[in-house]
Amino acid sequence: MSTDFDLVIRHGTLVTAGDTFAADLGIRAGRIAALGRGLTGRETVEADGLYVLPGAIDPHVHLQMEAFTAAGPTVTSDDWATGTRAAACGGTTTVIDFVEPAPGESLAQALAARRAQAEGRAAVDFGLHMTLSRADEATLAEVPALCRAGVTSFKTYTTYAGFKLADDELLRAFRAVGRAGGLALTHAENDALLAAAARDLLEQGRRSPAEFARSRPAAAEAEALERALALAEAAGVPFYAVHISTARGAASLQRARSRGQTAYGETCAQYLWLTDAEYARPGFEAARFVCAPPLRTAADGAALWRALAAGDLQAVGSDHCAFNARGQKDLAFAGADRPLPAFNEIPGGLPGVEARLALIHGGVVKGQIGLNRWVEVCCTGPARLFGLYPRKGSLEPGADADLVLFDPHKRVTLQKRVLHENVDYTPYDGLVLTGWPVATLLRGRVAVREGEWVGGSPNGQFLRRNLQDELFTADP
Amino acid sequence: MSTDFDLVIRHGTLVTAGDTFAADLGIRAGRIAALGRGLTGRETVEADGLYVLPGAIDPHVHLQMEAFTAAGPTVTSDDWATGTRAAACGGTTTVIDFVEPAPGESLAQALAARRAQAEGRAAVDFGLHMTLSRADEATLAEVPALCRAGVTSFKTYTTYAGFKLADDELLRAFRAVGRAGGLALTHAENDALLAAAARDLLEQGRRSPAEFARSRPAAAEAEALERALALAEAAGVPFYAVHISTARGAASLQRARSRGQTAYGETCAQYLWLTDAEYARPGFEAARFVCAPPLRTAADGAALWRALAAGDLQAVGSDHCAFNARGQKDLAFAGADRPLPAFNEIPGGLPGVEARLALIHGGVVKGQIGLNRWVEVCCTGPARLFGLYPRKGSLEPGADADLVLFDPHKRVTLQKRVLHENVDYTPYDGLVLTGWPVATLLRGRVAVREGEWVGGSPNGQFLRRNLQDELFTADP
Amino acid sequence: MSTDFDLVIRHGTLVTAGDTFAADLGIRAGRIAALGRGLTGRETVEADGLYVLPGAIDPHVHLQMEAFTAAGPTVTSDDWATGTRAAACGGTTTVIDFVEPAPGESLAQALAARRAQAEGRAAVDFGLHMTLSRADEATLAEVPALCRAGVTSFKTYTTYAGFKLADDELLRAFRAVGRAGGLALTHAENDALLAAAARDLLEQGRRSPAEFARSRPAAAEAEALERALALAEAAGVPFYAVHISTARGAASLQRARSRGQTAYGETCAQYLWLTDAEYARPGFEAARFVCAPPLRTAADGAALWRALAAGDLQAVGSDHCAFNARGQKDLAFAGADRPLPAFNEIPGGLPGVEARLALIHGGVVKGQIGLNRWVEVCCTGPARLFGLYPRKGSLEPGADADLVLFDPHKRVTLQKRVLHENVDYTPYDGLVLTGWPVATLLRGRVAVREGEWVGGSPNGQFLRRNLQDELFTADP
Amino acid sequence: MSTDFDLVIRHGTLVTAGDTFAADLGIRAGRIAALGRGLTGRETVEADGLYVLPGAIDPHVHLQMEAFTAAGPTVTSDDWATGTRAAACGGTTTVIDFVEPAPGESLAQALAARRAQAEGRAAVDFGLHMTLSRADEATLAEVPALCRAGVTSFKTYTTYAGFKLADDELLRAFRAVGRAGGLALTHAENDALLAAAARDLLEQGRRSPAEFARSRPAAAEAEALERALALAEAAGVPFYAVHISTARGAASLQRARSRGQTAYGETCAQYLWLTDAEYARPGFEAARFVCAPPLRTAADGAALWRALAAGDLQAVGSDHCAFNARGQKDLAFAGADRPLPAFNEIPGGLPGVEARLALIHGGVVKGQIGLNRWVEVCCTGPARLFGLYPRKGSLEPGADADLVLFDPHKRVTLQKRVLHENVDYTPYDGLVLTGWPVATLLRGRVAVREGEWVGGSPNGQFLRRNLQDELFTADP
Repeated sequence: MSTDFDLVIRHGTLVTAGDTFAADLGIRAGRIAALGRGLTGRETVEADGLYVLPGAIDPHVHLQMEAFTAAGPTVTSDDWATGTRAAACGGTTTVIDFVEPAPGESLAQALAARRAQAEGRAAVDFGLHMTLSRADEATLAEVPALCRAGVTSFKTYTTYAGFKLADDELLRAFRAVGRAGGLALTHAENDALLAAAARDLLEQGRRSPAEFARSRPAAAEAEALERALALAEAAGVPFYAVHISTARGAASLQRARSRGQTAYGETCAQYLWLTDAEYARPGFEAARFVCAPPLRTAADGAALWRALAAGDLQAVGSDHCAFNARGQKDLAFAGADRPLPAFNEIPGGLPGVEARLALIHGGVVKGQIGLNRWVEVCCTGPARLFGLYPRKGSLEPGADADLVLFDPHKRVTLQKRVLHENVDYTPYDGLVLTGWPVATLLRGRVAVREGEWVGGSPNGQFLRRNLQDELFTADP
Repeated sequence: MSTDFDLVIRHGTLVTAGDTFAADLGIRAGRIAALGRGLTGRETVEADGLYVLPGAIDPHVHLQMEAFTAAGPTVTSDDWATGTRAAACGGTTTVIDFVEPAPGESLAQALAARRAQAEGRAAVDFGLHMTLSRADEATLAEVPALCRAGVTSFKTYTTYAGFKLADDELLRAFRAVGRAGGLALTHAENDALLAAAARDLLEQGRRSPAEFARSRPAAAEAEALERALALAEAAGVPFYAVHISTARGAASLQRARSRGQTAYGETCAQYLWLTDAEYARPGFEAARFVCAPPLRTAADGAALWRALAAGDLQAVGSDHCAFNARGQKDLAFAGADRPLPAFNEIPGGLPGVEARLALIHGGVVKGQIGLNRWVEVCCTGPARLFGLYPRKGSLEPGADADLVLFDPHKRVTLQKRVLHENVDYTPYDGLVLTGWPVATLLRGRVAVREGEWVGGSPNGQFLRRNLQDELFTADP
Repeated sequence: MSTDFDLVIRHGTLVTAGDTFAADLGIRAGRIAALGRGLTGRETVEADGLYVLPGAIDPHVHLQMEAFTAAGPTVTSDDWATGTRAAACGGTTTVIDFVEPAPGESLAQALAARRAQAEGRAAVDFGLHMTLSRADEATLAEVPALCRAGVTSFKTYTTYAGFKLADDELLRAFRAVGRAGGLALTHAENDALLAAAARDLLEQGRRSPAEFARSRPAAAEAEALERALALAEAAGVPFYAVHISTARGAASLQRARSRGQTAYGETCAQYLWLTDAEYARPGFEAARFVCAPPLRTAADGAALWRALAAGDLQAVGSDHCAFNARGQKDLAFAGADRPLPAFNEIPGGLPGVEARLALIHGGVVKGQIGLNRWVEVCCTGPARLFGLYPRKGSLEPGADADLVLFDPHKRVTLQKRVLHENVDYTPYDGLVLTGWPVATLLRGRVAVREGEWVGGSPNGQFLRRNLQDELFTADP
Repeated sequence: MSTDFDLVIRHGTLVTAGDTFAADLGIRAGRIAALGRGLTGRETVEADGLYVLPGAIDPHVHLQMEAFTAAGPTVTSDDWATGTRAAACGGTTTVIDFVEPAPGESLAQALAARRAQAEGRAAVDFGLHMTLSRADEATLAEVPALCRAGVTSFKTYTTYAGFKLADDELLRAFRAVGRAGGLALTHAENDALLAAAARDLLEQGRRSPAEFARSRPAAAEAEALERALALAEAAGVPFYAVHISTARGAASLQRARSRGQTAYGETCAQYLWLTDAEYARPGFEAARFVCAPPLRTAADGAALWRALAAGDLQAVGSDHCAFNARGQKDLAFAGADRPLPAFNEIPGGLPGVEARLALIHGGVVKGQIGLNRWVEVCCTGPARLFGLYPRKGSLEPGADADLVLFDPHKRVTLQKRVLHENVDYTPYDGLVLTGWPVATLLRGRVAVREGEWVGGSPNGQFLRRNLQDELFTADP
């Protein structure tokens, strides 16, 4: 084979969702051009002793997201520039974020504005889920056009003022998405249960973040997940549950799949590695772990690892939603003498886009999941489920040469200073991981090397994603 | 890229366990050398409109198998030559058969004899599972050497005189296999339940094949599967249940996997497409459907399709074990005036090695499983589970160029004359399938074209299979 | 023992929820005064060869219920007089009906009006559930007073305009009931799913009663039941699901109980004996089987019998709600030339108060449940769950002498003319049952003998029922 | 009512499996003669503020049982005299013990010998289960005669040399018992798993009692229970699992019952109150907790409480099998200089016959089960399941006047000196219970008062128990 490749990654161990094999990988014009042995090219990257993976896909991030707090609006500390750069440093080469239309704004307008915000700033390619926070006829009439524009997944909520859809609205939305060939996502927590639990605690004067897990009980997730599954079943729409956090939720999903429903489940690294014990931290420190759903019991975490391994959950996202512990979580941006917020006033969300791939590899090290399953749930599964195939998430010729070189033996102690996320803490502080990305390629160019961004100006592109048609649903 | 490929398959839709994408596939020296676009080579096969799959792997066949009947010994009608040629015609490029050591024969001797029998006759590459029909120290001491010789999976039985292992024997065998890094297979039916059910029927004078399903109740499978799973769990050995035929069996396996056990399940095409209604056929015709476990209810079949789709079962085999309806099933080889055998004297087994791949594609057509899942359960899953990765079951460079060109629109009515199996009937007689293989390549050479063998002399090789180590267990 | 009993039932086989034993039963002043051998009294009833049971309790009837149809209001054909007399003829000595407050009417007012309607007309004692069709503060503030007045169970709906409560309303209602020590009942079907299914059918012009089962899918019951269970769990209120009709619903309840929740489930005779095959009847005849939830599959029925036997369901009601086939189901009361109503305009409900006890005994005959379990689910369970202990549902001294003499060998062919219900058909027409009540005693007096009312003027009393406190919740 | 009772218990709260009610209870000739109000008799016992229960039935005790240890034979420290007196002090008025035929001894002979041993010594009435430690034709031919003699339950083992039956033997035994109308009991632990676990530990030199739980893994119970259930299902015999100790075992039983199988499960007080944390006690102290199956995790215990409450388990036994900590558990009877025994040489079994009733009442106090359910699982359930109805386990007229007066508010700290068991320790040492029996009546006579035996000479009778026929199976 001639030396007509732009770049060849040599001697690596290629790891995909299905295979682990030794091969060189030839890149031309930003794409994987060939997999073979003894390839040569104008440039060469030596990968002996390293895994070569398809770049990880984070299906669930919130960058530069406006949040409306009791103390006024704020915005997540990681914007499109910093958040995607951190993603790339962690081996994530595609993120899928959300469009959240304002009242009165059409979906198309909101999409255009969100794309404009990201383009020229995003360091990695990105897709966008559309949030359906209303289900009127005019809004749902836009769904097919959005699908044609490459926004093929639609997020709904069962809670949060301004977002929550009632059952009939959910069903209408699901049917519209199903007819258009899209995928329905749901944040599933029962709103009434959350409201009552919070109210009860506050009435007892229990307002510290230590109460947070109690304010969002596991039954709320279980209930809303059963509901969303039943509505999606009736609507005939493929369904994806974001951030499943409990054993009970995972069991609901498993039962639905065993009944034959097309349904998928995501969990997040924080539900696998952290527990509600964090809320016992002294003072306001527990606020760093406030996210919805909350951290759960150790038994929940163990069950989630098993569900990932057994195929009962299909993807891991980060739900990256970074707010600084000082200045944001404490609502200090609203003035120094504002009292500390109650548990339900703290901006919710954890950072995690950078460490996700390595955290899940930690499960491989501990024997909780297999090596190829790791790639499946972090890279290939999300790509497939969200219509990025065959361009992303695979090492096939024609695929974008988004790649990670991952050193399975490198030991890293997680702490703020080794991460590139623009936020003043990491919830994994002090955790020692074995295995860390050492280089990331974006469409054929080395963009990160040894934790340093070397990719020049940001060049992330908006990704038009495919529909859930037969060819690409491909049961994960 | 230069024209240095021996053969290029152009314009096909490559379908793997994970991906569906358009690419050319370049072959050199019998192996997949590259996947890319615009490849050229000395020869070209046009695959426009066709799927290009990794050759199917049948993990469960019985070719040229001696059976000891009440009327004396017989041998399955398909031998290594005819059976593997039929396999190739159906798109199966690797079969895994069994070694069954005779009393007094060492495992090594039995392996050598079985290999010698196949080599020079097998049209496709083949692996061998070792049958452990005893668990004495000397026998188990051979396990590591067998693993080194590439026989890395070991079948045990919970029933059949001469095969059945008691619990302590099973446990010893499982531990030996686990220590050696192998995979434990079990035919799981409770022997005492089978014996009692058969005895009861015979005592009532009910001896016709119409009684067959009643003679092997579903509870027998459920019980033995629970037992084998528990023993494998205790032994710490990866476990593979052959031919799961019931909803209850699939549920047992699912629960084990949800508990975190490394356990896999195979079903067979006959349990997905046929039901116990076949045993109501008039006269001795029901004998054609005598196989163990028996055909089950329609509800069982529906549950098995769901389990395949949901990831709760991981592989489909054929359990091809062909006996002629006339001359063998009726024991007529023992003389014309021998009375027709009782249900439990009929040589058990169905043919099916040829239609397996197309039968499971039928589930794709009916929307029961996805396209990539079809490749997973017929090709990639078996290859991975049985240590043939990365050589078989994938389209990765370096993999053997064992390939199927599959026309998803070709309609075929199954009947004896369209099949190449050396047996006088097909249990699927009259079934109309959409989708059929139109060409099969074996290590880079077109061996079957439009149902005709054009591959010259048989050249199947014995495959040394890998162990269940971390790299290759890769949760399927 | 002296002859100081008013009445002695001699030589019967006393059957209770726990026991089956030979004893005489002495009655004094309308109550069971003693159980013993050789009792004598002023009067004697000979019960040799008969079962003597506590009078059956029907926890779920709708007598003299106003229904608002598309063609205007109508009222169930059985009023307090006819319905309770039919109940008595079938061995049911207590019914629990519902109060349904009108808009603007207080719960207390509605209760008073409903009591007034029944008193002097009801032939058997009766309790009343309160329907909570709103959950405003003023309404819920009435709950404790109602409990004190003996109305200790509160029914909510997840569907039906004018009845449906939203999640936060359900939760508030459940909490109010829980705090007051009551029991929360829910009719669980997801309203949005029902609405969409009906709309879809109607849009396709499919309006005949043959469509009825399709208009209320099983998933609607499953979803709403999961929801009500989760809300009740959070509210800490004992929960009772009325008319569970599906295997999936029964499984939800079983899982809740296994998690430790205080939750009970009722099914009805029609879901045990009839299936959705009835909707295939020609012409408008299917309308006779229109009830909500609808009749289900045979597999559902089999699962419900198993759940009753295994203790996973705790009670059987009739949901008696009789409308004449001619004149009501067809809306003919609105005029002769009104077109036949669509499936969702047909007044819903089946008669069944009279045959319930014998129908469930049919399960004893067929070996589906045990003899004592029959008494538990028809008599004792409902009494205990609804706070009628120890006065009703038992044969203990001090209990009201409400008794049934049941001939286990009497064969009856169900048909309109053997029943006393005031309605022009029976859904069980032609069914042959073995076992039928031959006499019914109400507070010590023989009120029915061989199917004839001999009890004189109606004398049913309103029953003040107990709370769900520790002593009487007594896990059934 | 005249004063013709021998004894009247006045003003008590009668608590049965179904009811809680205020009544007097009249006794004549050792039997309950009447339940009523205002009864008078020659003697009176005042029970104001006390519960009056049917005497508890302990379905699982081992009194005066020979055990064959590594150091020679020994016998349980409680013999028929001391053990039954302790039982009576704890409110247990009937025990069911076991006959264990010696090799060569017929079942009839063994029964006669065992009866002879007990009669004249037993303080309470007693039944006997027959142990089937072999399943040859002659032995099984004795089953019907035993049933006629009142021994209607038959225990089998899946482990222990001299007891273990193979599958075909179990099936034969189950069929023989089923045909005779009896009940099949099984001690379910997989023998091969136990043997291997013990051997592994011993080979590593780990022989202390701290290893005991590890030597009998939960999977061994789960496996053997699934097996016994499947064999019983096939045999069509009612099945009773003794001493279920794990959540997994309880779930197996629940699934069988949901499938419609006639199967019951017992757990024991020690699995509800104690955990495997006891094995961490220093030195040889852990030996006091050696019993089979072993104590399990706290999560198992919580699941067992839930299963009891939900009706998924039906009875609580004590499995009382007392060996002195000093002199027996340590094998010191074999000589002072014998080394301490390995974990698998320690005589297995815990004392518990006396505190069982109060321990389970502890679950009522903690809200884990209801008051009537307590009576069901300790008194009525065992009586019904084992064919003692209507004579035992009930407060019906005609029933034996075996009664307990139980003070629900009396606080007792469990310790050796408050108990009457003839053994030098209690595993519940220091546990504080609320609720304790204050008097026990045996066939109408006060035999225990305030913890003192006042019953004179022992007068326990052998009980002929009924078969599992329709009348009495009565789903519990």
